Amino acid sequence: MKSTIAFVGVGRMGANMARRLKEQGYAVTAVYDRHAPSAKELAAEIGASVCTELAAVTAAADVIFTVVTDDASQRGVFAATGDSLLVKAAGKTFINCATISPAVHVEIEAAAQKVGAHSLEACMASSIPQALAGTLYLMCGGDQAVFERLKPVLTELSDQGKLLRYIGPAGTAGQVKALVNMVMNINTAGLAEGLGLGATLGLDPKMLLEVFSQTGANSRVVATDGEDMINRDHSCYFSAAHAAKDSGIALALGVEKGLSLPLAAATKAQYDRLVALGCGALDKSGIAELTFPARKGTGG
Amino acid sequence: MKSTIAFVGVGRMGANMARRLKEQGYAVTAVYDRHAPSAKELAAEIGASVCTELAAVTAAADVIFTVVTDDASQRGVFAATGDSLLVKAAGKTFINCATISPAVHVEIEAAAQKVGAHSLEACMASSIPQALAGTLYLMCGGDQAVFERLKPVLTELSDQGKLLRYIGPAGTAGQVKALVNMVMNINTAGLAEGLGLGATLGLDPKMLLEVFSQTGANSRVVATDGEDMINRDHSCYFSAAHAAKDSGIALALGVEKGLSLPLAAATKAQYDRLVALGCGALDKSGIAELTFPARKGTGG
Repeated sequence: MKSTIAFVGVGRMGANMARRLKEQGYAVTAVYDRHAPSAKELAAEIGASVCTELAAVTAAADVIFTVVTDDASQRGVFAATGDSLLVKAAGKTFINCATISPAVHVEIEAAAQKVGAHSLEACMASSIPQALAGTLYLMCGGDQAVFERLKPVLTELSDQGKLLRYIGPAGTAGQVKALVNMVMNINTAGLAEGLGLGATLGLDPKMLLEVFSQTGANSRVVATDGEDMINRDHSCYFSAAHAAKDSGIALALGVEKGLSLPLAAATKAQYDRLVALGCGALDKSGIAELTFPARKGTGG
Repeated sequence: MKSTIAFVGVGRMGANMARRLKEQGYAVTAVYDRHAPSAKELAAEIGASVCTELAAVTAAADVIFTVVTDDASQRGVFAATGDSLLVKAAGKTFINCATISPAVHVEIEAAAQKVGAHSLEACMASSIPQALAGTLYLMCGGDQAVFERLKPVLTELSDQGKLLRYIGPAGTAGQVKALVNMVMNINTAGLAEGLGLGATLGLDPKMLLEVFSQTGANSRVVATDGEDMINRDHSCYFSAAHAAKDSGIALALGVEKGLSLPLAAATKAQYDRLVALGCGALDKSGIAELTFPARKGTGG
């Protein structure tokens, strides 16, 4: 029999994952969100209950996905006292999908084990449309036996398992995710500099983007962010504020190890600058606002 | 009838271009190199004369390719006085392939026109094997009529013209090339940080590279440089010293325009550091020597 499923955090990612699992025949029994209208709306759509207490979410399902925003929110839903997912959690399994500090995944696993529950980190290197389509790139960390047991549900989210990876013990998937985002953000900030300098020189940005795509300058972000940078279409798939946070996670890992990462540091500084300009809610492509002539971050 | 061809600068790129044109039925009549053995060896191989004076090269062919290293060498072969390609150059055409400051291409065009000659910049966004195979990505700048006239020979070098682009007036192709290399170098330096931090954290670098290649971190340099970074195979296709120079060209264009380019600046600083460590002759992938644990640039 299929596990029953619940979701904590039903922003656009969580909501789409819930829709996908419902569509694949899973009973999504309960949803919870700090933003009550998000939970209410999704619950009505997929026939789930709205929970206003975390303990009720745990009671309502075998497997609970958490899709929260940052370290503090992740620790918050697994609090040691008061309302918490860990209340009467023996036998339950938590799948934690946020991009957070790897050490927090290790903490959560220990806290879950202490009450007889299981946890798995499932870091997503894809975005909102892939969540709905069930084609997320999913990198998992934690106990391998827990991973194997959860494979059926994870498979429905990861292109029938083609995009599913077991990385290693708790924390390691979060490390890989932080590195993916660090490198992606560097490539994004670099692309913004190349296109911005080109525009400043009077070169046709579309010609330049085409040349980049055909040469050693090519990258995934050339395809995903290049046109948006030129057209100033920064409707959000992955926000600048998230980019700043994720680059910060990777940088902190480097600092811990005494490693100098000047590109990652410069990229974080650019995203921090964008956030300080009040543009944190723009998509990560918004970093081009700092490098194109006559735009916000260039005094334009 | 096919134009007769000569080459100034027959390092590995120039030599392979000459071989390709010879193979396609062009008469490559003369070669010149400051490093005499390079010229002698190639001349013997393809049946060309070795010139020891630049004026003799111009006398020997209709179309003269120059494939030199930097601004000073490019200006040197087109000197206004003394031995120079411009001596009795009326009616001749020069195709200049080095990655140099865009303003130097403009200077050379003016100097050539003054003596009744023509010039075209043909910037190559590919490497040594592509030169031999005739599959160079060629970006051309200069008078469009000159470009059209040279199409037959340029076509033989650029995958039957599929990789041939007319960009605009003199200097513009050099600008695009500088931007391509700037972005490529940023991506390279960023990849080295991602893989280096991963190795420091104890993650399997080959797993990490595979994940990068399948996610938003992917880029052309993941494919061209990733394994070399892991295996420390830095045999040279495009040297760290060239990367430092090219990043410098783009940065200078930015500074001229008052544009802040923190990623490009951080990348140039890394390549400068590598050169200062005596590693300028390594391939650009050698930048990973600065970011992997227990390597040269990390005190290892």
